[in-house]
This record gives sequence, C-alpha cells and structure tokens, in this order.
Amino acid sequence: MSKKLWQKNNLSENQHAALVEKFTIGRDAEFDLQLAKYDVLGNKAHVKMLSTIGLIEESELPKILDELDNIALQIKEGKFVIEEGIEDVHSQIEFQLTQKLGDIGKKIHSARSRNDQVLVDIKLFLKNEILEIKDLVKNLFQTLQKLSNQHQDKLIPGYTHFQIAMPSSFGLWFGAYAEALIDDLEMLLAAYKITNKNPLGSGAGYGSSFPINRTLTTELLEFETLNYNVVYAQMTRGKSEKTLAIAISAIAHTLSKLAYDVCLYMNQNFGFITFPDTFTTGSSIMPHKKNPDIFELIRGKCNILQGIPTELTLLTNNLPSGYHREMQLTKEVLFPAINTIKDCLYITEYTLNHIQVKDNILEDEKYQYLFSVENVNDLVLNGVSFRDAYVQVGQSIENQNFEPHKNLNHKHEGSIGNLCNEEIKEEFSKVFEKFK
Amino acid sequence: MSKKLWQKNNLSENQHAALVEKFTIGRDAEFDLQLAKYDVLGNKAHVKMLSTIGLIEESELPKILDELDNIALQIKEGKFVIEEGIEDVHSQIEFQLTQKLGDIGKKIHSARSRNDQVLVDIKLFLKNEILEIKDLVKNLFQTLQKLSNQHQDKLIPGYTHFQIAMPSSFGLWFGAYAEALIDDLEMLLAAYKITNKNPLGSGAGYGSSFPINRTLTTELLEFETLNYNVVYAQMTRGKSEKTLAIAISAIAHTLSKLAYDVCLYMNQNFGFITFPDTFTTGSSIMPHKKNPDIFELIRGKCNILQGIPTELTLLTNNLPSGYHREMQLTKEVLFPAINTIKDCLYITEYTLNHIQVKDNILEDEKYQYLFSVENVNDLVLNGVSFRDAYVQVGQSIENQNFEPHKNLNHKHEGSIGNLCNEEIKEEFSKVFEKFK
Amino acid sequence: MSKKLWQKNNLSENQHAALVEKFTIGRDAEFDLQLAKYDVLGNKAHVKMLSTIGLIEESELPKILDELDNIALQIKEGKFVIEEGIEDVHSQIEFQLTQKLGDIGKKIHSARSRNDQVLVDIKLFLKNEILEIKDLVKNLFQTLQKLSNQHQDKLIPGYTHFQIAMPSSFGLWFGAYAEALIDDLEMLLAAYKITNKNPLGSGAGYGSSFPINRTLTTELLEFETLNYNVVYAQMTRGKSEKTLAIAISAIAHTLSKLAYDVCLYMNQNFGFITFPDTFTTGSSIMPHKKNPDIFELIRGKCNILQGIPTELTLLTNNLPSGYHREMQLTKEVLFPAINTIKDCLYITEYTLNHIQVKDNILEDEKYQYLFSVENVNDLVLNGVSFRDAYVQVGQSIENQNFEPHKNLNHKHEGSIGNLCNEEIKEEFSKVFEKFK
Amino acid sequence: MSKKLWQKNNLSENQHAALVEKFTIGRDAEFDLQLAKYDVLGNKAHVKMLSTIGLIEESELPKILDELDNIALQIKEGKFVIEEGIEDVHSQIEFQLTQKLGDIGKKIHSARSRNDQVLVDIKLFLKNEILEIKDLVKNLFQTLQKLSNQHQDKLIPGYTHFQIAMPSSFGLWFGAYAEALIDDLEMLLAAYKITNKNPLGSGAGYGSSFPINRTLTTELLEFETLNYNVVYAQMTRGKSEKTLAIAISAIAHTLSKLAYDVCLYMNQNFGFITFPDTFTTGSSIMPHKKNPDIFELIRGKCNILQGIPTELTLLTNNLPSGYHREMQLTKEVLFPAINTIKDCLYITEYTLNHIQVKDNILEDEKYQYLFSVENVNDLVLNGVSFRDAYVQVGQSIENQNFEPHKNLNHKHEGSIGNLCNEEIKEEFSKVFEKFK
Repeated sequence: MSKKLWQKNNLSENQHAALVEKFTIGRDAEFDLQLAKYDVLGNKAHVKMLSTIGLIEESELPKILDELDNIALQIKEGKFVIEEGIEDVHSQIEFQLTQKLGDIGKKIHSARSRNDQVLVDIKLFLKNEILEIKDLVKNLFQTLQKLSNQHQDKLIPGYTHFQIAMPSSFGLWFGAYAEALIDDLEMLLAAYKITNKNPLGSGAGYGSSFPINRTLTTELLEFETLNYNVVYAQMTRGKSEKTLAIAISAIAHTLSKLAYDVCLYMNQNFGFITFPDTFTTGSSIMPHKKNPDIFELIRGKCNILQGIPTELTLLTNNLPSGYHREMQLTKEVLFPAINTIKDCLYITEYTLNHIQVKDNILEDEKYQYLFSVENVNDLVLNGVSFRDAYVQVGQSIENQNFEPHKNLNHKHEGSIGNLCNEEIKEEFSKVFEKFK
Repeated sequence: MSKKLWQKNNLSENQHAALVEKFTIGRDAEFDLQLAKYDVLGNKAHVKMLSTIGLIEESELPKILDELDNIALQIKEGKFVIEEGIEDVHSQIEFQLTQKLGDIGKKIHSARSRNDQVLVDIKLFLKNEILEIKDLVKNLFQTLQKLSNQHQDKLIPGYTHFQIAMPSSFGLWFGAYAEALIDDLEMLLAAYKITNKNPLGSGAGYGSSFPINRTLTTELLEFETLNYNVVYAQMTRGKSEKTLAIAISAIAHTLSKLAYDVCLYMNQNFGFITFPDTFTTGSSIMPHKKNPDIFELIRGKCNILQGIPTELTLLTNNLPSGYHREMQLTKEVLFPAINTIKDCLYITEYTLNHIQVKDNILEDEKYQYLFSVENVNDLVLNGVSFRDAYVQVGQSIENQNFEPHKNLNHKHEGSIGNLCNEEIKEEFSKVFEKFK
Repeated sequence: MSKKLWQKNNLSENQHAALVEKFTIGRDAEFDLQLAKYDVLGNKAHVKMLSTIGLIEESELPKILDELDNIALQIKEGKFVIEEGIEDVHSQIEFQLTQKLGDIGKKIHSARSRNDQVLVDIKLFLKNEILEIKDLVKNLFQTLQKLSNQHQDKLIPGYTHFQIAMPSSFGLWFGAYAEALIDDLEMLLAAYKITNKNPLGSGAGYGSSFPINRTLTTELLEFETLNYNVVYAQMTRGKSEKTLAIAISAIAHTLSKLAYDVCLYMNQNFGFITFPDTFTTGSSIMPHKKNPDIFELIRGKCNILQGIPTELTLLTNNLPSGYHREMQLTKEVLFPAINTIKDCLYITEYTLNHIQVKDNILEDEKYQYLFSVENVNDLVLNGVSFRDAYVQVGQSIENQNFEPHKNLNHKHEGSIGNLCNEEIKEEFSKVFEKFK
Repeated sequence: MSKKLWQKNNLSENQHAALVEKFTIGRDAEFDLQLAKYDVLGNKAHVKMLSTIGLIEESELPKILDELDNIALQIKEGKFVIEEGIEDVHSQIEFQLTQKLGDIGKKIHSARSRNDQVLVDIKLFLKNEILEIKDLVKNLFQTLQKLSNQHQDKLIPGYTHFQIAMPSSFGLWFGAYAEALIDDLEMLLAAYKITNKNPLGSGAGYGSSFPINRTLTTELLEFETLNYNVVYAQMTRGKSEKTLAIAISAIAHTLSKLAYDVCLYMNQNFGFITFPDTFTTGSSIMPHKKNPDIFELIRGKCNILQGIPTELTLLTNNLPSGYHREMQLTKEVLFPAINTIKDCLYITEYTLNHIQVKDNILEDEKYQYLFSVENVNDLVLNGVSFRDAYVQVGQSIENQNFEPHKNLNHKHEGSIGNLCNEEIKEEFSKVFEKFK
C-alpha cells in the first residue's frame, strides 16, 4: 500500500480508487496466473455445454473454442498477462474473447457466476497439484527404500525417552520414513477425492434458472462426480483448500521429523551420518563448522506448513453459509504452501541421495546396554520367566559385570533382519493407484 | 496436585513418591478404563500367537484365555478397576492374571513391550470409535435429507457477502449440510485406513528377537494390514490420534457452520426458523428472550474441537524418532474430543428433528431484489446479451421500477427445483461402505 | 525453485550450487532490505565501541562512520541493493565497506557474529515498527471516539445470543471498539518492553573473549536495557518476533470483530449502516448488490493474522537451546504480517470516516421487546421485587399487551447516557505514554 | 451424556429435559466451585453499592453481608456445594440467601445480570491466579539463579545448528532460563493489567437504567480501574481469558525448552546431567533404563498449553458483538491450563533442586574445536585481521594440527566470566513489583 496515501484523509477520487483497489485486489493477479490454464479449460467445457442448450449458436462454438486455444497457447508460452485495470484472470480472458469476437465473446458469461468460475478453476488446479505432489512423494519413497535396502546391515542405537534403548539399524530408520509416506498418501488421497468434484453450474451459490447441463461439464472436465447441491458447492470454497493443506501438513510432519533426526545424527555427539561439504555451510566466526542448513530449513519450512490448516480454519470459520469475499485470501495462504512442500519433497530426496552413513557405530562401548534386552530374551528362551530374567540382567548391569549378547536374531515382520520393504512397497502402490 | 505438598521442598520419601507419581501418571487411569476392553483383546491375540511359537505351552493357553474372558466380563459389567498403586490398565490386567494363574500369568509379557501394548489398544479403540462416529454421521445425514425433502418448496433468501443475493430454499439449505457430510466422511475414512493397521510386535519401537508372528496377530485382531516397519509402528503413536482429530475437526467445522446458520436464522431480524420452548432458554433479566443455547454450544464445542489437531501437532512435533513419554498425553487431548463430537452429532440430529420452519418468507418486500438475476436471465432467454440485460435490470432497480419475476425455473442438477437428494444419498453410501 | 533442475539428479556443480543456494537463502534478500537501515545503525554503534577498546584505531573510526553514513543515504534513497552472489544485507554492507576502505573495512566483524548482528537488526526494526503500529492504533482510537461522540444519541438494538436484548447505541458501539484498543495497546507495550533490550555482543550465543563493552552499545542504540545473558540473548530470536505477532494478533482480533459487525449491520435484514458506493463493490450477475468487500477483507486478513503466533510457535518449539538455521524463516512469517496489520488499521480508520449511520432504527415494531427490562426496572423502582416484576412483564409479553417504556434512563459510568469517552481517552493515554 | 438416551428419539419429557440440561450445563458446576469465593466478594460489593442508592435498605445490608460471610466460610471449609437442579454458582448463592432471608435475598439480583456477575467473578479469579503464578515464577527464577551461581565455573559445549560451536557453561545455561522468565513475566503483567478492570455494572452488556455506582464497586473490589463502556466490558469475556492463556503459553514455552535441554543433556551421547533414581523411571523390558519422564511430561504438558490461545481464538472469533452462550466454555479450556502451568512451574523448580551436574565435560577430545574461535581471537589480538585469522585457524583444523587455546577470557556483560546475575535479578524485580 502506498505510503504516501497514508498521510492524508482527503484523497482525490483517483487516489481513493487506487487505495480501495489495492486493498481489495491484493495479491490476486500473482496467484491468478497459476489459474489461467484451468480457467481456459473451464471456459471450454462451459461453452460446449451452452451450445447444447442453445445459449451459444452452433456456428459460434468453434470460434470461441479456437480463441480459447489461442489463449491457452499464450499461457503456455508465458505471454499471457492480466492487464492493468483488469481485475482478475477471469475478466482478462473474457476481455480478450470480446476483443476478438465482439458480442459472441460476451455470451460466455451466460448462466455462470464469477464464483463458480473461481471454484472450478481452483478445483482443477488443486487436482493437478495433488497429482504432482503424489509423484514427488513416490520419488522420495523410492529413494528411502533404496537407502533402507542398501544400509540394512548397519546398526545404530535405538532410543526411547531419548535414552539408549535397543539396537536399531539404518535399514529400519530409512524404511520407517518410507512407510510413513503411505499414511501421508492416504491423507492426500482424501484431499483428491474431495477435490475431484465439479462445482461448475453452482453460480453464486444458488444455481441458475438456465437449463444448464452440469453432468455434461462434469464429464468434459473429467471430474469423478459433482458437488450436486449448489449451496454445498459454494461451501467447498475454502474446504477443498483446507483439505489439501491438511494433506500437505501430514507430509510436512514426516519430512520435519526426518530432518530433525538428520540434524541430530549429524551432531558430533551422535555422528552417525554426514553429507558432502557442498551440502553443508560454514560459520562466519567458527572455522570448524559444517552446518546442516538444508535440513534445518526443511524442518523449519515444514513446521510452518503445519500451521497452514489453522490459518485456513481461522479464515473460514464462524461464517454463515454463502460466499464471503475473504475466501479470495485462501489463495495467498495455500498456493505458496503448495510450492514449499514440493520444494521440500524434492530437496529432501535430492540430498538424501548423497548421504554418507557411518559403519560400526555400535562398537562404541557406551552402546553396550542396547543389548540388555537380548540378554534377557536369551534367558527367557532358556526357560527363565521374563520377569525373573529382567531382574537378573538388571543386577548384572548394576554390578558392572554385564556382557552384551550381540548376536541379534530379529526375524519377525518389519524387524532389523526382515524389513519387509517389498510388502511396504506393495502397500504404497495400493494407495498410489487410487489416484486417477 | 496436592496443595500442601507445594509448601515445602523437604518432602518425606513418601510425599516425594506421591508427588512424582501424581505428576507422571496424571489422568491416565481415567482414560485407561476406556482401553481395558481392547487390552484384553490384544492380550488374547498375543497369547494365542505365543502358544504357536512355544513361548506359552498348549495346556496354559486355555487357562489364560479363560481368565482374560473373566476380565472382559468384569469390564463389561463395570466392575473392573485399576487398583491403587497399580500404574495403568496393562499392569492391572497382568496383575490379575498373575494373581489367578501364578507364573503362567507372568509369561504374557514375553516378546512384548508396554509400548506396543498401548499402541495396539489405542488403534483398536480408535477403530471402534471411528465406526461409532460414522454411524452418528449417517443418522444426521438422513435427518438432513429428510428435512431437505420435506421443506423443498419453502424459499429463503440466499446471501452472498452477507447481502441479499438470490432465492434459495430450505431444501437447498438442509441438503447442503447433508452433502457436506460426504466429504467429512472421506476424511474419517482416511483416519480409518491409517488406524486399521497392526502395530503389535513392534516392542519398544525396535522389534524383538523372539520369533513372533505378526501376521497371525494381525488376522486375529482383524486389522486390514500391519504397520510393518517397527520404527514406523512406533511413529504412529500420536499420528493415528492426530488423524482422527483431523477427521473430527472436519465434522466439527460442518456442525459449527450449521449451528451458526441456525443461530442467525433464529435471530429476529431473520426469523426463518424456531424451536419449541424446551429447546431454548430464557434470560435472568429479559423476560422476552428465547435463546438458542443448544446451537451456540454446538458451535462453541465444535470450534474448540477444531483446535485439537494443533494441540496434537504441538505435542508431537520436533521430536526425534523413538518413543517419548509425553505421547501418553495424547489420550487426554483426544479422548474427550471423541466424546464431544459424538455428543454434538447426536444433539444436532435430535434437535433438528424438532425444527420449525417459517412459510412465505420471500413475500416480505425487502427480499424482492433476490429476483433480479431472474429478470436478467429472462431477458437473455429473449435474446438480449447477458451484459446488456444486466445493465437494463440494474437501471430499473435504480429507478425504483423493478418488478421481480418470481416464477423460478431452476431445474439443473442440485438446484432449487432438482435437489438430487437421491444422487447425493448414493454418493454418501459409496464412502460409507468403504468402512469395513 | 527452477522447474528444470527438478528433472534430473545428476546436476552439474553449478546447478547443484544454484539449487542449494536457492533453497537455503530463500526470500531473505527481500526481507533483508527492510533491515538495511538498522544494520547501519548497529554497525555504527559496534565500531564506536570497538574504537574504545582499541580494536579499531582512532584514525579509522571517522572513515568507517562516514562510509556507513553514505550507505545509510543509499538506503534512504532506495539505491541500496544486495548484489547477486552476496548472501545477505550484512555481507553486502561489509562488502561495500571493504571495497571502499580495504583492510579497515574488514575489522568491523571483529568481536561479533552474524547471529548477534541479525538479532540487533531485528530488534531495532521491530521497535520501530511497534512505534508505527502504536500511532496507527491511536488514529483509529481517535476516529472511533469521534464517531462515538457524534452518534451518541442514535439507538440500535443490543443483542445477546444473537437475540434482540436491550437498547444499545452507536455511541456505545463505536466507543466499545475504541476502548478495546487500550487493552490491545497493553499487549503491544509488552512486546515493546521485550524487544527494547540490546542483544549485541552475544556473538553466536556464547559471547566473546574480546573485552567488548555492551553497556556502551546499549546506550548508543538507545535500548532500555540489555539481554544480559548471552545464551538468553540468542533465545530471544523468534521470541521477540512471536511477542509482536501476539500483539498484532490482539489488534487483529478487535479489527476483525468490528469488521464482522459492520458486515452484519450492512446486511439488509439489519440495515443499520451504509457506505458510499465507492467503498462497496457490485456483483457480476446481480445488479442490485452493494458488497462490503473492504470489511470482509479486513476480517479475513485479520483472521489469518491470528494464526501467525501459532506458525511461529511451530517453527521455534521443541528445539534445544542454541541457534538453528530455520530462525531465519521468522522473517517471512512476521514481516508481511506487520505490513498487513498496518494496512488494516489504516483502511479501517480511513473507511470508518465515511460511514453513514441510520436514524430511528428502534422505531421498527420488531424491536419493542428491547425495552422489556426497562419495564421490569420501573416496577422495581416502584417497590416490586425484581423476581416478581420479571414475571409480571413476562406475562404481558405472552398476553401480547406489552407496552414498552421507551424513556431510557441509563446514567451510570459507561452506559448509553454517560459514555465516559473522556475517561477512556485518559486510560488510552496512560498506556500510550509508556512507549518511549 | 447418557448412552441410553441416545438410542431413541421419542424421549419422555423428563428425559428430554435431562438431555438438554446435560448438554447445556456441561462441566460448569465443576469449574464454578472455583469461582464461588469470588462470587461472594462480588455480591458483597454489589449489595453495599445497592444500599447507597436505596435499592437495599440500611437495615437489610448487615443481614445480607452476614449471610454472605457464612457462605464464604462454607466455601473455605469445603462445605459449599451446588445442589442438584441448581444451574450454577450464582444461582446457588442467591438460593441460599433467599432461603435464609426471604424477600431480602431476592433483592440482590437488582440492577445486575448473570453476565456481569460471571464477568466479575472471572476477573477476580484470574487476578488471583495471576498473582499465584507470579510467585511460582519467582521461586523458579531464584532456583535457576542459585544453580547458575553455584555451577558458574563448569563448562559445557555450546551448540549452534546442533553442531559443536563454542564453550558455554552451566552458569550461562541456568542463568539464561532465569532471564527468560523476565520477559515471560512481562507478558503476565500485560494479562494482569488487562484483567484488573471492573466489569460489574455492565449488565447483559448494555448497562442498566438503575442509578448504580460503578466507581464505588471498583474501589470495593480493589480493581485498578473500570471497563467503562458496557459493550466493551462484555467483549472482555473471552479476551481476558485469552490474554492469560497467552501469558501461560509464554511461560510454557520457556519450561518446555528447558525440559527439552534437560532430556537431551541426560541422553548418554551428551551425559551432562543426571537426577537421583527417584526422579527417573525404568522400562518394562530394558533393565538399564533411567528415563527422564518428569521432564518429558513437563515438555508435553507445556507444549499442549501453547495450543490453548488458539482454542480460545477459535471459540471467540468471528462472533458479532454481544454475549454468546459458548463464552461459558472458556472456563473448561482455560481453568485446567492454569492448574497445569502451576504444576509445571512447581515440579520444575522442585526437581531442579536435585539436579546433578557433571564436571570436566570439555576435557573429552571431541569438544576441542569449541575453542577454535579463541584461537582466532588470540591471533586478532596479536594484530592479524579477523578474516585472515579465520582462514589460518581453519587451515590448522583441516591439517589436523589444531591446538585449542583453552584459557577462556570472557569478561563482558552476560558472558561466562561475568554472568551479571545480580543485574538480571534487579530487572526481574522491576517487573515483579509492577503487580499490585
């Protein structure tokens, strides 16, 4: 907002208009460009439908479709702009059509409202973004599984309560984060299902008295089904966005946790992993430092992302049914978050491909107690009751004559010696294939 | 926490122990009672499996199962208690078994950790709660559809920007909230999918050296699949809970919005609906008041519920992998929320069955502009371009000679004249049937 | 992040560097420009101090100060830029000094870390922003009081439970929001107090072995006191930011509530207020609409702002003491929020100056029950007990022979007839004057 | 809510009433008991004031005051109960007065609403709780300073980016958390200021036509000033509560961070501190474990507390001005949070008194690089420019011939050798003394 305008309350009419416009339009143009491509798709489906109910004549249809294809090309080539004085992407496209086609161009807004145009654009956009995120999740999943298989024999301490507990392995550790992504994908699938419904035809939220055919536009736009009830179609504004924000937040939680572990394991008191120098940064005053900035930033960005659903809740909550202007602001909350999660998924995968894993970690004496459960279990397998074996080993630790049994024999499903990565991969695929 | 203990720092040993115990155990006993039934189920599956791998003898198995059935009966009859000095439900059940069966009872804890016991109990409990919530959602869905059909011909104003916009109807309004529940059910389904995986056998998060059979317990407990990776199984602590909290939050958003509309429509400036006196309350100083307390409280409770996912995020975020004691606190955050959403679903449905809907609302002159779009559309259908028709009607409003065209002709899918409640019901069923 | 880089995992060294730099630097340059002016101030204080302890020679000091003044001028004139390849504002300034002054310029980083430089810049920046916000709050306070006085005799219905309750007035309504700002200012004052402490000299969070004089820089930078403990000084990173976010959030809550009331009162079912056409917008399909977009957007923006403290909590929580790189991200969360609250404060005040208030609202018959308490009170003043009077008036309402006593006699402090705006103004000033 | 009632929709009238009452009253009785004492205070001030304006006769006043003192005694002795069928604490007290004094008792509700009664009770209650929290903060502050002084010579590694950075000390570490409490106290002070204002006399939010004297009740109740505007007085419902929740959240952030450090430092990879066995717990399967459960739970509880402000925002946001019933729910969100922070403050202080601190930590070779900055600085003090010294020391690290200069010479304000605990104590006192 222009600082100069703030100085005075008696604005000229132009200054006044500029001030009001600046405040109400906000950052819309910036985000609307991302919607342009989908607005064209929505327009094409709409005019095809209009032609079937006689609101556009047969001869006019190809002209409009051609012109829309031209605009699509402009968009693809980065030449499309929202001109000064034009409010949003929808007006810009309508403006270009009218410039080219005159009165024919004006007809495109029949039986439609700005509101359902925005709704359908956003749903198409979100659908597409969900599919891109899904692919990035798959890439990361594969990298994590690859690392899990590759390092499956390398043991690390397992901690509970931040205390040394029992033996774990890099196979388990990488594999755990791979499996985590299955559940995150389940959340993304819910977002996809909720988004994959056609709102077009809901008008301003109360439908239209034109005999439109919403089933036809649903098919043309390849939505799975409709948001039938027009009042509900309008209610999905903000709700679709929040659902995706929740799915992003689930992935972000996993990435943040992984990044936390990475930062901890790079700490010199642990020292389990490192990365090549080009993935770390130094300090302006400490010449020995190799800081894990990438993972700290993944953690931070992903932690911020986990606050996005709350922002959208605060924005949309306690409003009666019907459209409210602030719904426009969902874009500036959600759209950057989509980019951030995509960046973080990519960077995590890219960087993990360069991880360096330390060998023989458990030979350090401080980790000997990790094996105390093994000693207990061996006693049990020799007939001692669990509770008695526990006491016996506890005593040996206290008396400092504990001798760790290091021959691990973990063979059950999902354990050190039997990671079940193939089964996990199959579970991942089951969810992955439900996106369509 | 006892106030008296706070006065002094030199506690006797007993006082010290009491203080520490009070702080660390907290409200666990209270919530653990809800888990008791599932702990028995988990125990039964575990001992059956142990008997197949020789850690429990064939002759011992029926004795343990009988005793567990006895405990299940105690629980069902409300006679089960966690005794003074016993830490939690798991210890209590183990204690009772040992008292009855001596050394045989002690064997039940072989090849298992408290951690995976809690995990499996919670998953079984959440699964069951999800199924109960699902049924309550269905009841409300049916009531809303019934009301939508029943009042489909009664018009109300539709608002956008809180401004009178276009005609809507009670059919649309009730029907919209019914359809909203489909998307909420999709979130609940995701929670169900994520919860419906067996963590038993993950031990303290690092598996076991005993040759346990996790596939067998998965079948016995009727989980759809396993949390394979034991490190991930442990990570699901807090994650399953949060996923359900998110689904609850989605339902809560819908209920809150409905309640908001109800409070607004009961306001005398709207006056669209009322309830019998026994559903409203009066004022201590204003004899004319009929307050919609039930719906204000539904709104308030459901708004608080929408903060639960954030609490669980704050609790579980930025912790490295491995169990941490505060995971125990997820119970006191989530369990009351489960009860609250069930109460709210029930009360909403119960109360809506008594709603009284006003007739002929749109005859009030202040609503005449609702029909301006109809006038515009009629011109369009008579050949005027949309933009020109818009200007023409706008002029008539300004000149105060606007004559509303009240013969609504909304016929497309999901509009006033074609609610598509049957189609919506079918979409609901599609999601509903995926819970199994 | 460049899309092209995403396609492949085998990046050239340059591409790799670009990718890592893009991810780690992020939007820093954008926000750092806002800090430039304060970085110069911090530098000036630091070198003056260095010269008193012999780390900068007497002859060098004026040269450095002159050059810093040159840079300050560049910044003021908008000519200062962070050059390609230079990481941040601090490096840019150091780079310019070294270019001009050679080895002398290098000395400026003695006895200092990037971390405490950022800390001091942010504190100085936040202090200044707080003072600007404070002034905008005052402007709004004055406008609200002016409107309260101007419209003090115009009655409106007071609602409780969204139900018509008792008479209120525009005097009370405007005045309430003015008084609300006093408590919000109290929160801003807390933020100011917490921010007004010098962290310079804390180094990377563990101090310095140079004999620096932090008391001197505290005086030179006009901080009220120091963050003494260097470990704590580092902990304030994120904490100062969050404290201001909380204060912003308090103001935002007030503005959002006011905006909500405005949107409601502009609704045709209420119709208490309007604004000139240039403050409202129309609809693309409904020619009769006058939408309160400005206030809907104020409400929406201010509701999003109320989520900022949670984002900062998520970002900074559960991290052990010591600096972590993601602290850098506080800027991209908080800085835009500062601009938003300033915009909203200004626009609210500007727009309220044009509000049009309706007369004689309470003459509408639907508001007659507002006066039932007056009838009850008149009976009480004539000797009937309150509880009995209540029953009697209740009966007359039920029997439809209720006659409202419209002669209001509210005279006590803060009531319709005695707004106490002068006293409220004095309370405002008391808090306002504590900022210094 | 009774499960049985859920089965059927045709409830008897009694069952219906029970259901509605159960839902609307909720957990009010439980929390109202905490308000009882303040309700008596509010009543006493109110009747004294009523007697000055003739609404209570001179002869009646002492009778009412006596009876209120009786009730106060009952409350103090734990004998006061809210009887079955009585809605809340206010009705119970009025009921007891009327039982004892007949018609005189009824007069107490003149010129007052339930709403302002609740408001004044809550403000008095919150004020008192704030003062108790303040004292607990002071206790912890003193303990932390004591430990800081006691262990000031014991060095520990200082970390940045979780990487070994520079030398720190237990003196700095304990002292940092002490100083943190000063800023937290500043937030608590803001809450106190905002709470310390008299709402009594605001009625249902629109004042009263009785000639009440609010200045008199302000003095009698020892509030600093009034919430003048009656509409604003009502708006403070929820706002006072949230302000305290924010202050609690600030303290919680500090405690959580301290607890995090403690858990980390107890981890065997760090091993800086321990506690006696009675402060730790074991594992059901690992006999060697000493888990820091107390601090994990402090961390968890304090992290949940940081979500409370969001819950209150969600509850109170986007509601138009005027009372809404859900305001009642602020009690069940805030009141338990108050108890939790008091518990956590107490337990933290109590447990820290037993902390055991390890000596000679920095002698471990892995910490030698901590001193690299010292080497750099020594070169600078010998005339090498900072940037060149940095390169030189970096080289020696890379060539593995780095020799740490361990003679620390940190002397400036707030550094290892000059903790400034006295100055910090004075700053604490300055804020502490503003509560009155």
